[in-house]
Amino acid sequence: MPAHGRRADAVRNRQIALDAATALLGEPGTALTVEAIAKRAGLGAATVVRAFGGKDALLDAAVAELLRPVVQRAKDLSGASQPDRALRTFLAELMDFQSAYHGISTELRGLNVPATTALRAELEGVVRAMVARAQRAGVIRTDLEPDVLTDLIGQTAFAIARFDGDLAGAYLTVLMDGLCPSTR
Amino acid sequence: MPAHGRRADAVRNRQIALDAATALLGEPGTALTVEAIAKRAGLGAATVVRAFGGKDALLDAAVAELLRPVVQRAKDLSGASQPDRALRTFLAELMDFQSAYHGISTELRGLNVPATTALRAELEGVVRAMVARAQRAGVIRTDLEPDVLTDLIGQTAFAIARFDGDLAGAYLTVLMDGLCPSTR
Repeated sequence: MPAHGRRADAVRNRQIALDAATALLGEPGTALTVEAIAKRAGLGAATVVRAFGGKDALLDAAVAELLRPVVQRAKDLSGASQPDRALRTFLAELMDFQSAYHGISTELRGLNVPATTALRAELEGVVRAMVARAQRAGVIRTDLEPDVLTDLIGQTAFAIARFDGDLAGAYLTVLMDGLCPSTR
Repeated sequence: MPAHGRRADAVRNRQIALDAATALLGEPGTALTVEAIAKRAGLGAATVVRAFGGKDALLDAAVAELLRPVVQRAKDLSGASQPDRALRTFLAELMDFQSAYHGISTELRGLNVPATTALRAELEGVVRAMVARAQRAGVIRTDLEPDVLTDLIGQTAFAIARFDGDLAGAYLTVLMDGLCPSTR
């Protein structure tokens, strides 16, 4: 086979393996081994390893592909005219995502996933900026630091999404009322 | 050795093993194997197994011993004259406990721990009753069901305690304000 044919094959196999990994990430209870991903992709395990160099790099690429639009959505919403509403809208969407892919954190534990780590840090930064902006606009409480509120929101939203995504609406109602700068 | 001496030894060994297990439960990162518990107790692994019949029963007894006073404290507070304050007080103490023993859930996963399961269910029931009572007293919001609020509170409090116990105060401030029946 000529060199450009092999390159085209490699690119195609890489994408097929990524799609398989992404699909498996959304299926709770699936063991995300290279073998399972290769089987779903209809490829040999050796081909998958050759395309990525190993499980860490494969899962890192798959999760990064899933996270990129989430980070972009946060950025898009972070300039909205009603920052508290934008925060609630974003959290609702984030929790849908976390419910759908709630095995990701467990799967990635202990793996070397630099692209995912960078995207998570970026996402946290964008949310912190949304919180700070809502504080400056006077629509969320200012007696707690943006860092503290961002940690609170991040951890509790994830816990609820993971436990039962159907509770997201009730959670967001209590949270946003709790974040409200009231006349208390 | 006469029979009553052997019985006294068995009772003593059982308590020594329980104390060792309880101590290890409070040390993050410790692998809670029968061997590790026996070593800490200064007993042979066979003696520990003989006293409890296995790891499941040993951990079940140790965690139940830790949980019993927590459940009792919830019961004691559940008749307080200011049910919202009682709920906050109890949650603060519960989160201290969860921070100190935050490995328990992971350690118990997949084990057969009937005493612990029963105490957890009892605790959830007591908290649900505290929430319902606070609603009837008009001090927390009634637009969400007690079951929903109890799940929200339980999951988010645990997530914060586990992530960083120092955030408990800020979390409880936002939560209690969010639970407040306001004029919104």
